[in-house]
Formats: sequence, structure tokens, C-alpha cells
Amino acid sequence: MSKGTVVLAYSGGLDTSCILVWLLEQEYEVVAFMSNLGQDEDFDEARKKALNLGAKEVVIEDQKRELVEDFVWPAVRAGLIYEDRYLLGTSLARPCIVRGLIKTARKFNAGYVCHGATGKGNDQIRFELGCYALTPDIKIIAPWKDPKFYDRFPGRKELFEYARQHNIPLPVTPKAPWSIDANMIHISYESGILENPATHPPEGIFQMTTDPEKAPDTPEVLKVGFKAGVPISVSLTGDATHVTNPLEIFTTCNRVGSKHGVGRIDIVENRFIGLKSRGIYESPGLTILYKAHQDLELLCLDREVRKIKSYLSTRMSEQVYGGFWYSPEFEFTNKCIEESQKLVTGSVTLKIYKGNVYVLSRNAPVSLYNEELVSMDVQGDYDSSDATGFIRLNAVRLREHERVKETINKMK
Amino acid sequence: MSKGTVVLAYSGGLDTSCILVWLLEQEYEVVAFMSNLGQDEDFDEARKKALNLGAKEVVIEDQKRELVEDFVWPAVRAGLIYEDRYLLGTSLARPCIVRGLIKTARKFNAGYVCHGATGKGNDQIRFELGCYALTPDIKIIAPWKDPKFYDRFPGRKELFEYARQHNIPLPVTPKAPWSIDANMIHISYESGILENPATHPPEGIFQMTTDPEKAPDTPEVLKVGFKAGVPISVSLTGDATHVTNPLEIFTTCNRVGSKHGVGRIDIVENRFIGLKSRGIYESPGLTILYKAHQDLELLCLDREVRKIKSYLSTRMSEQVYGGFWYSPEFEFTNKCIEESQKLVTGSVTLKIYKGNVYVLSRNAPVSLYNEELVSMDVQGDYDSSDATGFIRLNAVRLREHERVKETINKMK
Amino acid sequence: MSKGTVVLAYSGGLDTSCILVWLLEQEYEVVAFMSNLGQDEDFDEARKKALNLGAKEVVIEDQKRELVEDFVWPAVRAGLIYEDRYLLGTSLARPCIVRGLIKTARKFNAGYVCHGATGKGNDQIRFELGCYALTPDIKIIAPWKDPKFYDRFPGRKELFEYARQHNIPLPVTPKAPWSIDANMIHISYESGILENPATHPPEGIFQMTTDPEKAPDTPEVLKVGFKAGVPISVSLTGDATHVTNPLEIFTTCNRVGSKHGVGRIDIVENRFIGLKSRGIYESPGLTILYKAHQDLELLCLDREVRKIKSYLSTRMSEQVYGGFWYSPEFEFTNKCIEESQKLVTGSVTLKIYKGNVYVLSRNAPVSLYNEELVSMDVQGDYDSSDATGFIRLNAVRLREHERVKETINKMK
Amino acid sequence: MSKGTVVLAYSGGLDTSCILVWLLEQEYEVVAFMSNLGQDEDFDEARKKALNLGAKEVVIEDQKRELVEDFVWPAVRAGLIYEDRYLLGTSLARPCIVRGLIKTARKFNAGYVCHGATGKGNDQIRFELGCYALTPDIKIIAPWKDPKFYDRFPGRKELFEYARQHNIPLPVTPKAPWSIDANMIHISYESGILENPATHPPEGIFQMTTDPEKAPDTPEVLKVGFKAGVPISVSLTGDATHVTNPLEIFTTCNRVGSKHGVGRIDIVENRFIGLKSRGIYESPGLTILYKAHQDLELLCLDREVRKIKSYLSTRMSEQVYGGFWYSPEFEFTNKCIEESQKLVTGSVTLKIYKGNVYVLSRNAPVSLYNEELVSMDVQGDYDSSDATGFIRLNAVRLREHERVKETINKMK
Repeated sequence: MSKGTVVLAYSGGLDTSCILVWLLEQEYEVVAFMSNLGQDEDFDEARKKALNLGAKEVVIEDQKRELVEDFVWPAVRAGLIYEDRYLLGTSLARPCIVRGLIKTARKFNAGYVCHGATGKGNDQIRFELGCYALTPDIKIIAPWKDPKFYDRFPGRKELFEYARQHNIPLPVTPKAPWSIDANMIHISYESGILENPATHPPEGIFQMTTDPEKAPDTPEVLKVGFKAGVPISVSLTGDATHVTNPLEIFTTCNRVGSKHGVGRIDIVENRFIGLKSRGIYESPGLTILYKAHQDLELLCLDREVRKIKSYLSTRMSEQVYGGFWYSPEFEFTNKCIEESQKLVTGSVTLKIYKGNVYVLSRNAPVSLYNEELVSMDVQGDYDSSDATGFIRLNAVRLREHERVKETINKMK
Repeated sequence: MSKGTVVLAYSGGLDTSCILVWLLEQEYEVVAFMSNLGQDEDFDEARKKALNLGAKEVVIEDQKRELVEDFVWPAVRAGLIYEDRYLLGTSLARPCIVRGLIKTARKFNAGYVCHGATGKGNDQIRFELGCYALTPDIKIIAPWKDPKFYDRFPGRKELFEYARQHNIPLPVTPKAPWSIDANMIHISYESGILENPATHPPEGIFQMTTDPEKAPDTPEVLKVGFKAGVPISVSLTGDATHVTNPLEIFTTCNRVGSKHGVGRIDIVENRFIGLKSRGIYESPGLTILYKAHQDLELLCLDREVRKIKSYLSTRMSEQVYGGFWYSPEFEFTNKCIEESQKLVTGSVTLKIYKGNVYVLSRNAPVSLYNEELVSMDVQGDYDSSDATGFIRLNAVRLREHERVKETINKMK
Repeated sequence: MSKGTVVLAYSGGLDTSCILVWLLEQEYEVVAFMSNLGQDEDFDEARKKALNLGAKEVVIEDQKRELVEDFVWPAVRAGLIYEDRYLLGTSLARPCIVRGLIKTARKFNAGYVCHGATGKGNDQIRFELGCYALTPDIKIIAPWKDPKFYDRFPGRKELFEYARQHNIPLPVTPKAPWSIDANMIHISYESGILENPATHPPEGIFQMTTDPEKAPDTPEVLKVGFKAGVPISVSLTGDATHVTNPLEIFTTCNRVGSKHGVGRIDIVENRFIGLKSRGIYESPGLTILYKAHQDLELLCLDREVRKIKSYLSTRMSEQVYGGFWYSPEFEFTNKCIEESQKLVTGSVTLKIYKGNVYVLSRNAPVSLYNEELVSMDVQGDYDSSDATGFIRLNAVRLREHERVKETINKMK
Repeated sequence: MSKGTVVLAYSGGLDTSCILVWLLEQEYEVVAFMSNLGQDEDFDEARKKALNLGAKEVVIEDQKRELVEDFVWPAVRAGLIYEDRYLLGTSLARPCIVRGLIKTARKFNAGYVCHGATGKGNDQIRFELGCYALTPDIKIIAPWKDPKFYDRFPGRKELFEYARQHNIPLPVTPKAPWSIDANMIHISYESGILENPATHPPEGIFQMTTDPEKAPDTPEVLKVGFKAGVPISVSLTGDATHVTNPLEIFTTCNRVGSKHGVGRIDIVENRFIGLKSRGIYESPGLTILYKAHQDLELLCLDREVRKIKSYLSTRMSEQVYGGFWYSPEFEFTNKCIEESQKLVTGSVTLKIYKGNVYVLSRNAPVSLYNEELVSMDVQGDYDSSDATGFIRLNAVRLREHERVKETINKMK
């Protein structure tokens, strides 16, 4: 008598393998779901492993293209950045996985989903909020928050013991003294020895980008094209590369960024659950696209529209970071951002060199930049004497303020 | 019969020299005021020049220390950055100069001040608003906005001709095909051939920073200490340098940043007068201090306090950029920021390498970062099962939203 | 030899009549434009007057319907209110008039428009910004800001003298000791004896609304229907009134509001030019619609969407007040607001009584209000024990903050 | 063997009496805490009742004065209003009660506090967050969220039965078909038949204010004095009343407001837990003070300072509503608000009539209102022709935007 079907977000690693077996012990039927987001993983091997452990079925979904088109592009268009530094590499992948997970749950008519995220992190929230939002009646099993599970596995030792008992293959390489989350847009390193914010990032921790000190001595020049705020092309001036397919645009930026050591950060951030945590991240391609978009936006967007858009972008960053991708506020904000970007069309040329992304120039077929108007050499349709009155009226409040201060001083 | 005394913001260059002579022609008495903000200038030579041209007096004020303490420090503490990229190097210098100018005007009982800024830029606004704010009754002469002046000097040719007639020394080096504004914290390049946003920054334009491609191959490690958000020390780990004097802190950061090519940007920005302009800027030391402060702040500031502070910082950036340093809103915002920074005390260690500023670690005697609480290995004072309820309640709105969407779909 | 054609925003009053004659003296051809916004005016008489004075043509445009549909409805939908109190009755009428004025200018191929607003008010800005925005090359004649005009007419006496000389009919009733601006949505009273903010509003100043103390002793009950945030119907429960035509909806609300003394305010506000001014306003119908919409919105809008919408609404109020109706930021904000209101459909029942507007109830076919979920008597799909974890996690930051404060206290 | 001491927030009513007995059953020692916030309650009777039921001690704290000075005054100064309508009458009382509760817990060295709030409301959050913030290690017992309790008492019947068994006095009057929360500043009515947002407020529900239709026919005129944003006096012009003591200021406003039916609202609001709820509130005195302060603020605060203050006020309203009175963000925001109000000193005269609060006039010894500057009859220190340039420069962006739109149209 099964309690029902669970779709498990399966990584192929030790934890979710143990969870898979534990779910079977609890008399669930288990469908293992794996999302291929371009991470370095042997999916065939993982499929075999899950089936061997008793999974009723294994669903491996290639979500790379939807990750780029449906999650990364809106982020680039909005200029999302959390707390001024984090480009949300992990946060963007989560709702993409959730989409695959829920699609699978519907396909198998499963009443449960299960994930291996812990109770102190952001990912539990992104998974669970996403699942609840898409299927309000879903039930979520989160073993690392369930005393039945975590009391049984208080440490790695008990997990290894359990693995041995249940023929769960043990990892062949020793675990890094930190945890890693990887997808094609981003790798994050957290926990373990990194938990002390005063420790320097360990030598050799980065897996996605070349050490800037070892990066090529010759810069690379890149041109990114945008339409309505969304990347539509990348060309490298060094060779004949010119790509227009979303996935290729992203991987090209990634390749160049990785080679030149772009997009490494080491930050302390505020988790949604109220804790501060330290993370080390690398997002090479996303960093390049973020900077290119930002530059073009300044050329194309009216100043006051940009101010409002900037407010919306900050809100949207918080929404995405906090797991509210599938929410009324995200839907609304995203629509507003889309509206703001109608004129953000053109291209930006960038120089990539040893971790740096320099903007060299930008171009837009139609823009608010008016070379004649701004020129110091041409008058254009501009009367300098207007500035006098402009400033005089802007000074009205300031002069009144000074007058009031003087009055108060005299009263003392 | 003099019309009265004018204090002229004198740069020593051709334009303000011509203005000086022109003011004398208009029957004003002229006091030339020069602010020493660390720019590369022969002040003695300039003094002689102004006196030769007929200035009644020349006042040269060393404002370097007040620039750092009274203008740069509040900016660093607030994390000021205009339109996400510009650290306000010129904008911060202007109110400092205004202070010197007005002090001089008071000393000489002058009813007028005069500046050589044009009618299309931001600096006219920063000068004039500042002057009006500090002395509501001051009268401002801005020749480049006065048809009496600019109709007489429609181009460089007429200015040269005038200079020759009045024994105004002509520049010995040909004018760069762009305009430059320099002070110890920043150099900006604008206008001329840079007005086309699609031109790449010309080779050799930068004067303050080494080309990153030619910068040392060996990184430099720097430790910046802060108290209540303000820098209080810098040490270099490579040598025995440890400085605590504000001016030395700044010049040390500047020296290291310059050597390693830090702080170059090429941007299009929105001027306060409503035009878009393109500028190329370098701010080596300020870039380092901005990044160090940002990192420490995340360690020390509560998440929700930071959100509000971030809003205030954006407002303050707009105020400073727009010339509203001496305004009720700046006074208020600056006080709020000061209040927010009481706990931002500690230090940040940074690696500087070929244009990059990498944070390596951070440290605070008292901080909201709780290593035990965030640890994945220790439970700390945290019950993971609380997260379940937390997420469930955060999902209430999302599930309701989905329910409404389903209802609407059924109604269709 | 005419200097060209001017379209004059003509009110029929003394000032614009004098301006009309003065423009002819300056050798312009004058087309007088009058907008019928429902103000109390004898348009036929005004037409004759303008023709008699020499206007080449008089255009009287009935803009009542467009005022309601294109200007008032977006304001109601957005919940516009300036500085928390002013419903923008005058500000909304200005861009409507500008539209008529520019349409007329195009029809007559006029290179000039002229208005009679003064240099200290908001209306000059709303007129001129609107005209420049719609026709960037238009030239604007503003006699009250032109020394040629205002030096000639330093007071009412000179204006009367001029009127007598040019057969301009003099007003038969003595001028009120304040100025009035009226349209069908609003009357404002300013200037003169009202300039002292400590004077009470004079007895009998209000023209549009009954004194609440003299209003009916019997309340009136009104039901307003909305679709996507826009009013679509009004019914009175007291009689069989049920209207669905936009103009009738508005006039019905106005009628009820006027009768019951609704919508009077006496405020000090911040003008766009930086001055503070005192105004007394009445907006009966708009007040009712504002309150009805606000109530329905809370029923229909998600909490977080509402927060963002509220930010946008404040921005839009500032835009409209400042004369930026025709601007990129208004276009953008208005679109966002429209997007936010898709689900704001339903009706609100209100009781109107002696100046008060009480909400009695509200109803929406589809809403986020879930009676079962909120019920204290039914559990619904809600597990109270989830609240424990929710609060515990929300307390994490607060407890850490307390911990830090204790540490600091101990360090002292 | 006692499990320890619990301080119970005791109301004297049936629920908390049952909870008291139930806690004794669970082998806690119980200290009953009652806060006297001016609600209509026989505290002596309640004390006897609690002691009879087995409370170890009963602490009754008169917190009226601290409620006004430490909670209401900061709210008035900040202009707090939640979702544009709710003056936070209940929200302000909660942290005041928490203070008394925690003080009592410390006095009795109690490790536990207990409250009778349910799991669907806001009050549980305000109580618990406040307690956790002030004493991070406190343990909270919330029976209505504990299955041990609520499974035992699924309805009123079981509660009555339990009361009968334990000699808990049963209420003599039948329970109103809604729940009531009352303190001296506010009464709220929720739940029961009010849960349907389409039902009209029942006849006779209001306990604190006269029905406006039955309120006096003669208005009352009131003058409220403020210093730095805080009320310092109230006088009634009708009699010789002039009070300056905080508690008396508040009760005087309350008395006048109550008599004239001021401060009734019927709203749907967004609870912090994510639900929408309907509440009917009355806050007579607070409404008067809110309106008076708002009016004075516009006279005294610079426009741009007010904008920032307005943002802060909205944040602070959310903080207070959500139970974050004792939080880093509240501390910070409150300090900023205090800073903003330094010049908000003066008085406002109001007319109170049948539910309305009309501002008649305002006065400030020092204010930014400059009667001469704004006068239409006097030029003051203002040059109207400056407005021309001011508008021209504000139009730069708008004209550029139009130019871009035309270009795009031509491209189509």
C-alpha cells in the first residue's frame, strides 16, 4: 500500500540518493526528477543509480534553453542584482527547476514533491514557494526539516552508514570543505570553512573561471546586441563568431567570461530567512550581459523612466532572491519592466581583460542621446540663458531654507 | 566707479583668464579665487598671471583636507553612486569649491561671484545652487550664459584674439580634443570627440591611472578600517604602510588604485538639465573605498535597515549630482545615513590587481553575522522546522493568487 | 505684415481679453481658443466678445467627455492624490486644454500659443510643458512673464485703463478677493486674502458644494461599479438612477457630492516651482470616486502588488501636478498602473452624508479576499501552527539585533 | 513540580480565563498580567477572578501615559497610516502591552509568556515578535496555535463546558457576533458576521463614537499645538479648555472626536500573514491629531524633505502594523522621522462637525511658507522671467522623447 507518488528533485549525489531510499522506506513511490541546466553531471549514470535504488521512473529534462530564455533574459532585461552585487545565478535556476518538477508531478499525478535543501538556506524557500504557487494543493516533503529524518542522520557518519546498508554508491572524491551549487550560469560556494567571513577564498576554489592572474594577456572585444532589453546577438571581433540563438549567445558570453576570469565575487548577503551568510560566486557570462545591458539602458531610457525602472528592478531582485518568481508581484513587476524596455535596442562593445569588463562604446538606432544638443561646440536647439532661470527656480527652496535657518539662529 | 567686487572661480586657464579681463572691462573689481584640490597646477604661476591681468587679489585655498573629510567621507559612508556607476568625483568637489568661494566673497564683502562653466553642463548648477543656498542674496555672473559675452566669443578663435590683445598668455600645449576636469579624487573627460558615444576612449586619454594592461603583474593587498561608516585607517600588507590621517588614507588608496589601474569607467549619464552626456572618468582611491565600505556594510547592517538606507543613498546621490549639497533634503538625508552607520565598524581586506578590486575578507568587532546560526554543521539557536511554517505562510498570498487565476480562466 | 498666428487660451475674462488686444498690437493674428470643461461660462457671449476684439477666429471645444474619459479616469484608476490631500482637479484639466490648444494650433498652422498664467503658479508649467511636449517647435507667449507686458500693467488699474481704451468690456461684478479656477471636476480658490495661511476660509467662498452644515439630514447611498479600475456605473439606491455613460457617471457623483457638501479641503501645498502656497479646493464627485476605488482596490489587489502600485501612484501624482502629463515617465507609469488594475473589478457601496463618504460594503466577482481562509470560526486551508514558525523566523533578525546591542552594552 | 512560571496576558474574559486554568493543569505557575490602556474594564473584579482561578499573582499596570507618550506620539509625529486608511490603533497598543508583559516576566524571573491570540491574526505576531525582540530567550505559549489546546476546544461549546467544570465565570451578556479589541485610542470590530465584506456595518456596532447623524448640530473648534512634530497642547475655543499634559491632550481630542462621530472606518486590509481581512475601526482622537499634524507638516517641511519623510512614514507604518516595533528598522526609521520633524512646530485650528475634521488655519513661528514670495500681488524676491528658462529646461527631455517617437513612427 503506497502512500502515494513523490517527485524527488534528484541531484545524483549522496544526500538525495539517501532521501530516495528513505522515501521508499516511508512507503512512497518515487519518481526522480533531474534538471539539466548545463551543470557538469553524468546524467545517464545518475539515471541508472536512481533506478537501481528503486525509483519508479527517472525524468531528466534538458532545461538549458528555457533557463536562458525564460529566466536569464528577464533578469538581464530588468538588470537584476541583489544587494548591489549578486546576479542571482542560483535564484534564477530554482524556479526553472520548479517548473520541471511540477510538470513531472502533474504527468505522474503525484501529490508530493520532495527536495534535499536544508532549513537554513534560501533554496528550500525558492523550491517550496514555487511549488505551492504553481499547485496550491501540492504536499512538500523536506527531509532535512523533518525530525524523523534529521534526527536519524545527525551527521555525515550516519548518512554514510545508511548508504552502505542500502547499496547507495559512496562519493569517490572527498567532499570539499564547502558546499557547491552549479548550473550553466553560475557556481556558488558556501558553508564549511567559508562560514567565517574573515577567511580568504581558498586557493583553487573557483571551477568556472580562470584565475584573472592566469588569464590571457590579450583582451577580447565583444559586441552584444539587444532588442527591447533582451540580448539578440553576440559577436567577437577577434574571430568571425556571430551568434543569435539565445543559448549560444549565453554560452558565448560565458566562454569569453570564463576564459578571462570575469564575474567572481565574495560577499556577505542577507538571506530571506533573516540570517547573514557568506558566499563566493562566479557568473562570467551573466556579468558581461549585465554590464552591457546597463550601458545601453542609459543611452536609451529617459532619466525619469530609469529612476522608476530602477526602483522596480530592486523590488524584482528581492522577489527573485526570496523565491517569489511565481507571484502576483513578480508577474506585475516583470510586465512593468518589459514596458520600460521597449526602446532599449542597440549594441554595446566591451573589452574583456583579466576579470574586467570595460565598455568601449554603445550604439542605438534610436536614442535619447542627442549629440548636437549636448555638444559644447554647437548650440543646437538649446538656449544657455534658459539655464539661469532654471537654476534660480531650483534655488527658491534652498534660499528659503537658509532664510529659515537664519531666523532660528536669531531666535536663539 | 566700480560696479562692485566679484570673486571669480579662477582656474588659471585661458577661459577664466579672459573672463577676468572681461570683468575688469565691465568695471568690476576682481578677486581671483583658486581652490587647491590636489589637481596638477602651478598655483604660484597662476597667482602671478591673475595679478598681472588686473586681479585686485588672488586667494588660493588649500582645500584638500576638507575635501576628503567633509565631502568624500560622507559620500563613502553613504555609498554614493550616481546611476549605479559614477562615484561623483566632480560633484563632490563643487560644493567644496563653493564653500571656499563664498568664504572669500564674505571676506571681501563681494556682492558677486563669477564662474566659467557653460550653460549645458552640471557644474553651473552645482556652483550656482551652492552659492544661492549659502548666501541667498549673492549675484552670479556666468559669462558663458550671458549673450554679452558669448556673442562676442562665438568660438576659440575670438577668444585667442582677445587673449592676444590683452596679454593673456596663450596655452603652450594644444588643447586636447576633449575637456578635462581634475581634482585629487577624480579626473573626468568629456566633450569634443567624446561626444559621440560610439567612439572608443582614445588611446592615452587617462592621466591618473595606469593602463590595466600595463599595471603590475603582482597584486597588492590592502586593509581598510572603518568606524561608523567612515574610513579610519589603511594598511598595505606588502610593506609597513599604515596610515590613519584622513588625507593620507585617501592618498594611499589613490596611489595603490592608480598604480593598478583601478576605477576607470566610460558611461552615458543623465545630466540634471535633462540631456544625456558621455563621460570617461577615473577615480582610483574612491573606487577602492566604495567597495570596501559596501562589503563591511553588508556584514554590519540589518537587512531591513539596509533597504531603507539604500533608498536614502540613491536619493543622496541624485542630490549631490544635481548640485543640492547645501539643501534641506541633503542635510536631512545625510543625518539619516549617519544614523544608519553607527554599527558599521570593522575592516575589509582587498586585493588590487589590474583594474580589479577583490574583497578577500571582512571583520567586525560586533556584527549581525552569526557564524553559529548560519552554520550548516551546527544547529545553533535555530529550529529548521520553523522554516516550514514560515514558507507556508509566505505561500498564502501566492496560492490565493493562483486560485483567482484559475477562477478567471474558468469564467472565460 | 503679421508676425504669425497665435492661438490664445482665452477665458473670456478681463486678463485674456486685454492679452488678445495686446497681441494684435504686437501684430500677431489671434485665434481665441476656449475649452468647455463644464465651467459656468456663457460661451456664446465670450465668442462674440473675442470676435469684437479682433480675434481672427474663435474655437470653442466641448472637451467634457474627453476630460472625464482620458484624464479623470486614469487618475481615478491610479488613485492619484498629491501630497496626500489634493485630488488634482486643476492639474487634470490642464493637459486636456493643452490638447485642444495644440489641435487648434495645428489646424491654423499657428507657430505660437499664448496663455494668461502668471510666473509664480503651476499652470504656466502645465501649459508650457504640455505644449512643448506635443509640438517641440512651438513658441510660447506668456505675457505675464514678459516685461514688455507686465511692466506696462503693473496693477489692476492699468489693466482697467487699457480695457477702457480698447472697448474691452469691464467685469460687472467686483472681483473676489481671491482667484478662482473652475471646471466641472473642481474649483480652486487661491491668492489674495487666502495667501495668509492663518486666515480661515471666508464664509460663502465655496461655489460647487453645499455647506455640510446646511446639507440634507438624510444620507444618500450610492453604488459605484468598476472594471479594471475604471468606473463603469453609478446607481443611487434612493431613486432609480443607474448610469453607465462616463460623463453621466461623473456628473452623477458630482451632483450627489455637491448636494451633501463632499470634497472640501483647505491646504498648504508645495508648488513645482519651489514655493509653498495655500489653496482651498472642492472636488465633490472626484472625492467619491477616489474613495470608492481605493476601497475596491484593497479587496482586489495583492498586498505586494499594491505596495508597488502605491509607489507608482505617488510618482504619477507628482508627474501630473508638475505638468508632466505628456512625458515618457507618465506614459510609462500610466501603463504600469493600467497593468496593476486588471483585476480591480467590482462595486462599492457608499453612504454620503454632510461632507462624509462612508464605505458600507464592497463586492467583487473575483477577489483575493477569501472568507473561509480568514474566518475565525472555520479553519479553512490554513494550519495555525504554521504561524509559529513564521514568527520565529521573522524574529531571527530581531533577536540578533538585541544580541548585538547587549554585546555593545557590555563593551562599554 | 512546576514546569516554570508563565506570565499570561490576561484580559479577564472567558478565553484567557480558560487558558489560565489550562496552564495550571499543564503544571505551570501563572502570573496574570493586565495592561490598563483605558479600556472599559473592571480591573479589581478581574484581579479577583484570576486569583480565584489560581493565579500566583496578578499584575495590573496602568500604561495609559506610556501608551500616549511612547507609542501614540511617535505615530502622530510620523503620520503613520497603514494602507492609506488605518491609523494603527491596535498595532500601537500591542508593543506597549509587550513592554509591560516582559517587565513582569523579568520581575518574576519567568521563562514563559502566554497570550490568547489566534493563529490567523496580526496580534499573535505583534506579541511574539515583541517578546522575542526584547528577550531573545523567552519561550512563548500560544494555546490557540497548540493542537493540545485547540483540539480540545474546537468550539465555544467545549470552552463553556470547561469553564463550568472549573468554576470559571461565564459571560453574562451574549457574545457579540463579532470580536472587539478596545483601548483608549481605538476600538476595532472584526470576524463573525463582519467577515463578509459585502455586509454593511451593523446598526449600533460602534461603542466609542456618536453616530454622525446623531452628533451635535453645532461644530466644535479645536486648536492643536505641536513642537517638533509632537502634540504639546489642545484648546477648545468653545470653552476655556486648554491642556498641555500628554494624556489630557489625547483624552481631550478623544472626547471631542467621540462626541462628533469622528474617525470611523470600514476597510479591507492586508494582514501580515498574507490574508485579507475586513475591519471596522474607530479612532476619534487619533484622527484629529493625524489631520492636524499633516497640515502643519506641509507648512513646515521642505518639499523634498517631505517626499523622503513620506517614504519613511510608509515603511514605518508597515513595520508597526507587522509587529516590528522593537526592531532595528523601526529604531532607525523612527530616528530619521524625529530628525525630519525638528521644524514642525506651530498650531493648527480645526473644525469638528458630524464626522468631519476640517482644517481652518495653521500657524508656525518659523516656516518655509513665504507669503510675500507666493503673493500674486507682490513680486517679492522672485523674477517671473526665470520661470521661462525653468520650464524650457524641464521640457528638454519631453521634446527629445517626442523627437524619438517621431523617428520611430517614420521608421515604421
